[in-house]
Amino acid sequence: MFESAETGHKIDKKTFDAQVPGLREDLLNAQYDLLQNGKFSVIIVIGGVDGAGKSETVSVLTEWMDPRHIQTHAFFEPSDEERERPCMWRFWRVLPPRGKIGILYGAWHTAPIVGRVMGNLKSADLDQAIEEIRHFEKMLSDEGALILKFWFHLSRQQQEKRLKELQQDPRTRWRVTDNDWKRFKNYDKFRKVSEYFLRQTSAAKAPWLVVEGLDHRYRSMTAGKLLLQAMRDRLDEKPVKALLDKIPPMLPQLDGKDILTTLSKARVMDKNKYEKELEKWQGRLNIITRHPGFRNISVVLLFEGQDAAGKGGAIRRVMGALDARIYQGVPIASPTEEERAQPYLWRFWRHLPRSGRFVIFDRSWYGRVLVERVEGFCSENDWGRAYAEINDFELQLVRNKTALVKFWLQIDKDEQLKRFKEREKTAFKRFKITAEDWRNREKWDQYHSAVCDMVDRTSTAIAPWNLIAADNKYAARIEVLKSVVKSIENALQK
Amino acid sequence: MFESAETGHKIDKKTFDAQVPGLREDLLNAQYDLLQNGKFSVIIVIGGVDGAGKSETVSVLTEWMDPRHIQTHAFFEPSDEERERPCMWRFWRVLPPRGKIGILYGAWHTAPIVGRVMGNLKSADLDQAIEEIRHFEKMLSDEGALILKFWFHLSRQQQEKRLKELQQDPRTRWRVTDNDWKRFKNYDKFRKVSEYFLRQTSAAKAPWLVVEGLDHRYRSMTAGKLLLQAMRDRLDEKPVKALLDKIPPMLPQLDGKDILTTLSKARVMDKNKYEKELEKWQGRLNIITRHPGFRNISVVLLFEGQDAAGKGGAIRRVMGALDARIYQGVPIASPTEEERAQPYLWRFWRHLPRSGRFVIFDRSWYGRVLVERVEGFCSENDWGRAYAEINDFELQLVRNKTALVKFWLQIDKDEQLKRFKEREKTAFKRFKITAEDWRNREKWDQYHSAVCDMVDRTSTAIAPWNLIAADNKYAARIEVLKSVVKSIENALQK
Repeated sequence: MFESAETGHKIDKKTFDAQVPGLREDLLNAQYDLLQNGKFSVIIVIGGVDGAGKSETVSVLTEWMDPRHIQTHAFFEPSDEERERPCMWRFWRVLPPRGKIGILYGAWHTAPIVGRVMGNLKSADLDQAIEEIRHFEKMLSDEGALILKFWFHLSRQQQEKRLKELQQDPRTRWRVTDNDWKRFKNYDKFRKVSEYFLRQTSAAKAPWLVVEGLDHRYRSMTAGKLLLQAMRDRLDEKPVKALLDKIPPMLPQLDGKDILTTLSKARVMDKNKYEKELEKWQGRLNIITRHPGFRNISVVLLFEGQDAAGKGGAIRRVMGALDARIYQGVPIASPTEEERAQPYLWRFWRHLPRSGRFVIFDRSWYGRVLVERVEGFCSENDWGRAYAEINDFELQLVRNKTALVKFWLQIDKDEQLKRFKEREKTAFKRFKITAEDWRNREKWDQYHSAVCDMVDRTSTAIAPWNLIAADNKYAARIEVLKSVVKSIENALQK
Repeated sequence: MFESAETGHKIDKKTFDAQVPGLREDLLNAQYDLLQNGKFSVIIVIGGVDGAGKSETVSVLTEWMDPRHIQTHAFFEPSDEERERPCMWRFWRVLPPRGKIGILYGAWHTAPIVGRVMGNLKSADLDQAIEEIRHFEKMLSDEGALILKFWFHLSRQQQEKRLKELQQDPRTRWRVTDNDWKRFKNYDKFRKVSEYFLRQTSAAKAPWLVVEGLDHRYRSMTAGKLLLQAMRDRLDEKPVKALLDKIPPMLPQLDGKDILTTLSKARVMDKNKYEKELEKWQGRLNIITRHPGFRNISVVLLFEGQDAAGKGGAIRRVMGALDARIYQGVPIASPTEEERAQPYLWRFWRHLPRSGRFVIFDRSWYGRVLVERVEGFCSENDWGRAYAEINDFELQLVRNKTALVKFWLQIDKDEQLKRFKEREKTAFKRFKITAEDWRNREKWDQYHSAVCDMVDRTSTAIAPWNLIAADNKYAARIEVLKSVVKSIENALQK
């Protein structure tokens, strides 16, 4: 879910300077309207990676609004008074009353995340804490509180760079402590735990808003706009889409960057090189399925991508490496009558492999949030809840020692056109191009944002998306084979 | 939550024979309407105590309806096919399609409960399993399934009696195995774990329906009527009150018994005996507060009861035993302006005691589900969600080493009238009786059912209600003191 906050979002000074005065005025007006309305409180929770600008953003927000009606609280070690009461007592003490804004820096999310990263909490303990937080936040929002949770994120490279910069500047050197570097060593674990925690504690009425923290202008303006939007919606009594649980509001589009537009192009690979690499990786894949441990795991591969992105070709190269007795290919088209009489995921559950077997899905359960969403084949509520359902489903697979590898093959619009035309010209490829393909192409932009949402919401630590730049077919196929081999190797090591 | 299913519910043969033919006809009609409608499936989950008539009820339901459109599945040890897939696969395999009814005997609830009772699962593991079940059932109901979960209950005494009866009858002797008796030894633990599990996995759209299993006629008819009602509501497209999450539908009133009408009368106690007992228990209470461990725990007492039930008198006898420096009495009346600007529970959180201290609430957070519910001071949604919020709150108290003791003092309507009149006659008691008391009295029956609901939903293994028959003031006060002493003793042993 952090992918979109690692694309290098930036806003230039000119745009920023031009927009901030208006934003400040709107925020102040919203703050005074809240004071007058007096029907709800605003609770802003601040979390995220060290060095991603948490305290700076608190300062900016306080500066932009009237600080007399904002209460800011930071939580460090509990006092003895606090230790003698239930652990949530310290937060109850400082809840903002209706009409006011409270900013909580390092709130109830800190202890569970840090505890899990440091190994003091087991996975089930974390889930217990998550459940309690969910109840607490639900209670707050049922009591009318408007809750916004900001998570300021930096990629590993960005955080390292940022800490070094702070350290080199004499004015900020004091801010980087040994503890910060110690925590940096745990970056990957912290990212993994936070990702899970954020996903599990994001609710429609208490969403986590993941904001890239690299550029201070982008960060402040995104936070300010999100806060303004949320306050205005509530003050103007816009209905909240409570059904779309777990789906945070979209971040404002400030610079047009996203995970697909910033995906690097595939490297060029000629046929010669390709054939050598193909032999090498197909061989490795074949050998790994004869590993004694392979009998205890199973493999599920799924391929998604634009029409003509090369899914079929990639799948054939995988199958080519395998003993035909151990895999099953499952092309996903319209559901059968029997399947339509069952819950959506039933048609995929029925194909799950036994141990020691592969199942390869050509298109998959992600149809729910791609084609079914874009074409309106199911209601907004149905595709909206699908993200969480899919995450649950995949968690069950991975827990059951399944190596789950998910591929999105990405080509650009020109490349697709080229391939479509080629297909129309070549006799044995003509069956592969239909009127529907041309129709889908007209909805390119809608599919584009559905894919970004899909990756944001379902690329999890245990089941990440492999985004494959597929404009060079050869390079794409080799990358697919490599990822399959590596995922199986990982699963065997567990 | 099992209290209401331990009152000895029974239906006589005549009533049963008169009502069953109509019920069967209605059930069959509903079943055929479902088949024709074809828009949803009905999933019936069967769980409960051994000997409480689980399989008998399955047989009865199957007999009453057309067995060709009911699929019954019982789950024992998983097969090797099942073991190689995620553990929910075995349930996905047998989900009934839309239009049909599936009865699942020993479904996904069994493994977590048994695992926890046997000590194979930690408390946090159980919470994790609960969370997964909740997601699964939410998905099923979002996909349109109608889910009913029956829990057939017997009290410890009832179960013992039932097992012995089965064993003595040569026709049923084979049904009682050593395993049953082994499980019976774990009755208390099983009750405690099940109570927690049921409370946490009861949702508006997948409620647990706790049915007393003692009498086969009561049991079958309750199950049949609940099933019929749920199917009819859905077929006739009655709106489900989804907001009232966690509140199961009311059981049909078949015999007028409830926890208050079946509460035994207080034993008679004369003044002499009372004074001796008072001295004894006040002494014990005083001494226990000087126990070295007492510095590490805290005590929260709360008193609820009808007007003139003797709350104030009981509280004074508790206070009389304590050093005035270690307790604080908190009478709960209308909230202050500051309190009204905060979430409902805030006014109670602010009074929580430090370690080594008592706080005694004269009326409490239960006002939400008693006076505020009956008088309409808050919306149905607000008091509806309060049960779960209160359970969460009390769990936090108990986890924090707080001895929480909850009293409901119960008098009958005549006794109240007598006391009201007495108060009006006695000069120094006249301030205790107001017009409001007389008004409340007119709503006696509404309060009666609000109290039954409250106990059903908030009498938990960790924070049970003490129902005190208070028609004899002396006996009631001694019982209160005893319960306080015993609860503190328990808390000190943890």
